[in-house]
Amino acid sequence: MSRADATKARILQAAADEFATYGIAGARVDRIAKTAAANKNLIYVYFCSKEQLFDAVLDAHVTHGLDSVPFTPDDLPEYAGRIFDYCQQHPEVIRLATWHRLERADQDPTGTLRTAHETKLKALAAVQKQGGPGSDFSPTALLSFVLSIALAWNPTNATSMPTSVTETESTDARRRAIVEAVRHLL
Amino acid sequence: MSRADATKARILQAAADEFATYGIAGARVDRIAKTAAANKNLIYVYFCSKEQLFDAVLDAHVTHGLDSVPFTPDDLPEYAGRIFDYCQQHPEVIRLATWHRLERADQDPTGTLRTAHETKLKALAAVQKQGGPGSDFSPTALLSFVLSIALAWNPTNATSMPTSVTETESTDARRRAIVEAVRHLL
Repeated sequence: MSRADATKARILQAAADEFATYGIAGARVDRIAKTAAANKNLIYVYFCSKEQLFDAVLDAHVTHGLDSVPFTPDDLPEYAGRIFDYCQQHPEVIRLATWHRLERADQDPTGTLRTAHETKLKALAAVQKQGGPGSDFSPTALLSFVLSIALAWNPTNATSMPTSVTETESTDARRRAIVEAVRHLL
Repeated sequence: MSRADATKARILQAAADEFATYGIAGARVDRIAKTAAANKNLIYVYFCSKEQLFDAVLDAHVTHGLDSVPFTPDDLPEYAGRIFDYCQQHPEVIRLATWHRLERADQDPTGTLRTAHETKLKALAAVQKQGGPGSDFSPTALLSFVLSIALAWNPTNATSMPTSVTETESTDARRRAIVEAVRHLL
């Protein structure tokens, strides 16, 4: 890795932490520079603006992060379980995605978000055509429900209950319930 | 309504709009004062701080708002449909709840959020004891899944797809799919 690439990687990691904690409006570029031990001007040279830095983080952590979870349209219950596992291990992913929804709404400047979804929807439609389970729903509806169930307990979820209410359920019990719920859905 | 009550009501409405758009950190008390045609100092007299003003808005719009949707533990599919309808008509509710999750995490200063959930969970447990459907899941899991499915398409949902992907489905089709999905779940 060249020295410039190493600096970029440090900036992206520091930016991911900063944006996950404070969101886009709340993030401070000088805090990112300090954490990354990089010159603040260099951040603008590499990424142009705070918004474009956020897009780069979103792309790396959310779109490619969630895409690294193998999608198995013929085994959606286990896919939901794996998404749950991934988000347990990477709590910043759903925080970043949620800030994006609140602050940038529908913007998908790189188009990768759309592509990632469309690839999955096509694969799902192909399985449904072969009489696979879940044919009561359109591919879009089915994928939306599977992801929503997988993240039902995510702390950023608007409807998630205070942990004081839910703390009685272990992580394993939650994962089992998620897999079972998607099985029922199909 | 006294003049003071009328001013308070105007402040709460202006604050709801401001917080829904910008979140807690991003909200500006002078913008709220201007929109409400109220003196900025009066906001501090009535609500002490921006954070406590947010709590009052959350209480009024989210906790009591969602609680105004009749909870029918013996007919969860229709309950999910009604939650969907309510959030279509009041898009600010889930935005406010989501900002709360991101910026104040688990804080529930008034305790009403916890109470609202616990009342529903008790009613659900009672129906399950009588052999009602959905007994494969704990009341907490079941309520989490029902709410997540009801909000699967909500634009603030971290996993919701760009509208360019989902715009082919009408509001009616979405509602039908939600009711059907909860039926499958049970």
